[in-house]
Amino acid sequence: MNTRIYNARLLTMDGNTDVIENGEVLIKGNTILYAGTAEGAVEYLRTVTEPVVWNRDIDANGNLVMPGFKNAHTHSGMTFLRSAADDMKLDAWLTQQIFPREALLTPDDIYIASKLAVLEYLTSGVTAVCEMYLAPDRIADAMEDSGMRCVQCGGMNNFSQSIELQREWFDKLNKKDSLNSYRLGIHAEYTTSKELLEETAALAKELKAPVYLHNSETEKEVQECKERYNGLTPTEALDEMGMFEYGGTFFHGVHVTDHDMEIMKKHNIAVVTNPASNLKLASGIAPIEKYMQNGITLGIGTDGPASNNCLDMFREMFLVTGLGKVRENDASAIDAAEVLKMAAVGGAHAIGLTDCDALAAGKKADIIMLDMHAPNMQPINNIVKNVVYSGSKSNVLLTMIDGKILYEKGEFNIGEDPEKIYHDVQAIIDRMR
Amino acid sequence: MNTRIYNARLLTMDGNTDVIENGEVLIKGNTILYAGTAEGAVEYLRTVTEPVVWNRDIDANGNLVMPGFKNAHTHSGMTFLRSAADDMKLDAWLTQQIFPREALLTPDDIYIASKLAVLEYLTSGVTAVCEMYLAPDRIADAMEDSGMRCVQCGGMNNFSQSIELQREWFDKLNKKDSLNSYRLGIHAEYTTSKELLEETAALAKELKAPVYLHNSETEKEVQECKERYNGLTPTEALDEMGMFEYGGTFFHGVHVTDHDMEIMKKHNIAVVTNPASNLKLASGIAPIEKYMQNGITLGIGTDGPASNNCLDMFREMFLVTGLGKVRENDASAIDAAEVLKMAAVGGAHAIGLTDCDALAAGKKADIIMLDMHAPNMQPINNIVKNVVYSGSKSNVLLTMIDGKILYEKGEFNIGEDPEKIYHDVQAIIDRMR
Repeated sequence: MNTRIYNARLLTMDGNTDVIENGEVLIKGNTILYAGTAEGAVEYLRTVTEPVVWNRDIDANGNLVMPGFKNAHTHSGMTFLRSAADDMKLDAWLTQQIFPREALLTPDDIYIASKLAVLEYLTSGVTAVCEMYLAPDRIADAMEDSGMRCVQCGGMNNFSQSIELQREWFDKLNKKDSLNSYRLGIHAEYTTSKELLEETAALAKELKAPVYLHNSETEKEVQECKERYNGLTPTEALDEMGMFEYGGTFFHGVHVTDHDMEIMKKHNIAVVTNPASNLKLASGIAPIEKYMQNGITLGIGTDGPASNNCLDMFREMFLVTGLGKVRENDASAIDAAEVLKMAAVGGAHAIGLTDCDALAAGKKADIIMLDMHAPNMQPINNIVKNVVYSGSKSNVLLTMIDGKILYEKGEFNIGEDPEKIYHDVQAIIDRMR
Repeated sequence: MNTRIYNARLLTMDGNTDVIENGEVLIKGNTILYAGTAEGAVEYLRTVTEPVVWNRDIDANGNLVMPGFKNAHTHSGMTFLRSAADDMKLDAWLTQQIFPREALLTPDDIYIASKLAVLEYLTSGVTAVCEMYLAPDRIADAMEDSGMRCVQCGGMNNFSQSIELQREWFDKLNKKDSLNSYRLGIHAEYTTSKELLEETAALAKELKAPVYLHNSETEKEVQECKERYNGLTPTEALDEMGMFEYGGTFFHGVHVTDHDMEIMKKHNIAVVTNPASNLKLASGIAPIEKYMQNGITLGIGTDGPASNNCLDMFREMFLVTGLGKVRENDASAIDAAEVLKMAAVGGAHAIGLTDCDALAAGKKADIIMLDMHAPNMQPINNIVKNVVYSGSKSNVLLTMIDGKILYEKGEFNIGEDPEKIYHDVQAIIDRMR
C-alpha cells in the first residue's frame, strides 16, 4: 500500500512546528519517503529510479497533516469499567469497584476491551500507546490484529506478574511484530516490596533497560514512602536501589521535589503527565513548567478509561497548558507549541520510540489529518494554537498507522465490526453485575 | 414543521436525570407536545383530536435525546481573534492584542463573526447562548437569521454603551422575535464608574430587572475594588448601591468571600462558571462545590473564543467537575449529574429562560441527539457519566432549536454556506494585520 497525500497544510514536527502550505507526503509501505513542499516532492520523485505506484492519492483539501499523537500512558483494557464507578473517593473506588471486577477478567476480555480502546484512540488521532495492564500477550494480539502501535510495560507488584514473566515478555514481545514492543516496569513503589524492587533494579542492569512506573501520583503515596524508607521520596528510594541506571519513565509525576527533579535529570528519566485523570481522582496538578525548565522529556497520556473516562488527546493537551497556567499563575506559561510537541514527539521519546515521532524520510508512516474546514478551526490565525486550544476529536479525518489507514471520515478499518466490539465489551460488565 | 423522534434513549431532565429507554418526543412547530415512553406517546396521540402530520419521523436508533446545552456566557463576535493571541500575560493580551483590534470592528464584522460562533455552538449541542458584546442589534440579527436562541446582556462600561442605549435595547430586543431577548448588564465593576453603576442600579429598579456582569474573575480585580470602595468586594460594593434588588447573574465568580455568597443567596443571584477561560487566563478555579452547598443557581459558559479558544460545552462540563474535585481535594465532589443539570437546566435559569430547560409538554423544542454508537460512549454503564466525562463534539448527531433542525450529521442548515462564513471571518482579521 503506497499513499500520496497532497494539497495539505503540513506540520512535519521534524525539529520545529512551522506549517508548510501546499505540502505533500509520500508513503511507501509503512515508511515515509518524503514529507515537505509540493515542489520538493516533484524534485524527490525525479531522483527515484524505480517509479512508485500510488494505491491511494489523497487530496487533503488544505487540511492539516501531521504526526499522530502518542498516548503515552493508558490501561486500555479498562474500557469495560467506563462510567461504572465515578465520583467516589480514591480508596473506595479502587477497593470496592475496580479491583473486585478486574479479578473476574479473562485474557479474552482484555483482548476485546483493548480493541474498544483502539477504536477510540483512532478517533482521537492516536497512533501509538504505552500500555500497562493485565495479560500482555493478549494485549499484544489485540494491538497487532487491529493495527495499533503499542509499547507495553510491566505492571509488576506484590499481587501480580513477576520477574520471570517480565523477562519472558521482554524477550517475546520485543520480537513479536513491527507494532508491539515491551519495557520493564513495576506498578509503583507503594504496591511493590523492597525485595521485588531490588530484583527489578538488578534485571534493569542486566538487560540495560529503563524502568517504567507510576510515580508520585498522590501526596499520600509520597508520604507513605517516606515513612517506609527513612524520609526518602519514591524517586529517591528507587534511585538508591540503582533502579535508573539505564533511565526510566514516570507516569503522573505530580508531587515531586527539587531533589527528585535532579535525579530525573541525572538519569534522563522522562515524565508522562495525565492531567484529566489527576483532576478526576483529585490527585493534583503536575509541575509541567518546572519539568520544562529542567529539560525533562515530557509526554502526555490519558490514563485508563475508568479514571478519565475518555481517551481524548485533545482534552489532555488543553489541560496540560491550562492547568500549567493556573498552577503558575501565569497566562504565558507552557506555550501551545510545546504541548503539541509533547503530544506528538515527546510522548514517542518518553516511551522509547524514535522512528515515528515526526514526518520525515525513513520514519514510520504514523500520520493524522485534521479538518480545517470546521468552525472550531476557523479563522486560520495560528494552526498550532488552533489544534491545542480548539481542536477536537470531531476534527480527526484520518488516522494512519504503519502506513495503513485505520480510520477515515468516521469509518474504522481494524478488521472487526465496531458494533460487535461494543456488544462484547458490554457483555463483560453485564456479566459482573 | 412537525417532528417525531422515536427509539431514543431519553433524558428529559424534567426534575431528574433518569434515562427512559425506548423514549419518544413529539414536536409541533417550535413546541414539545410530548416527551416520555413510547407507550405514553401512543396514549398521548389517542387523546389528540386533530391528528398531527409528521414532516420528519426520526429513528434515534438508541441514541441519546436530551435538552440542548446552554452556553451561559460568551462573546461570540470574538471568533475572528481565535488563536490570534495566546500564551500572553492578561494585561498585554487585552491592551496590545484585543482592544486595538476590537476598535477596528464594524457591526457587519460582528454579524458574520457571530455566525461563525453559531456554527460551532451547533456542533457542540448548544441551543441557547448568553451573549455580551459590541453591536447588540447586529448580533440579534445574526442569531435570528441563523436560528440560534440568544439572551443578550448589556456590557456597559466607561468606554462603551450607555444607560440610554441599554434602555433602548431592553425595549427593542425583548420584542424583536421569539429567539432573541435582552437583559440589563455592565461589563464589570472595574471598568465602570461609580456614577454609571448607580445609574444602572436605578434603571434595574425601574425596570424590575436583574443585572448581569463579569464579577470577581481575578484576584487583582477584587483587590483593586477593595482599594476603591473602602474594603468592599465587588459584590458588596454593588449590593450597597442596591444593584441586585431584582437579582442578577455573575459571570466567572472565581474569587468570592463567604459574605459575597450570603449576598448572592439573599438576592437569588446566579453564577455562570467559565472554567476553560479561567485556566487559560490563569484566573483561578471557582468554588463550585461551595456554590452548590449554598443552593446558588449555576450555569456553564465557554467565555469568548479569544480566551478559551473553543466553544465546546463538553470540555467545560469535564472541567467543572474535574477542577472542583482537585480544588476540594475530593474525588467525590461535584457529581456528573449535577454538572449535566448546570449545562442544560441551570444555565437556562441563570440567563432567565424557563421554557427551554427540559423536554416536557409545552416547552420549546431545543433538543440534541448524541451518538451512543461510538467508542467513547461504550459500554453503556451510566449514560449521564458517559456524557459528562467522556462526551465530545464528535457525538453530536443533531441540534434542534425552536423546533428547527439546524445541524444534522455534520451538515449545517443556518441559511448560509459555512465556507462563505469562514472566508468572511478570515477577511476581518487579515484586514487588521
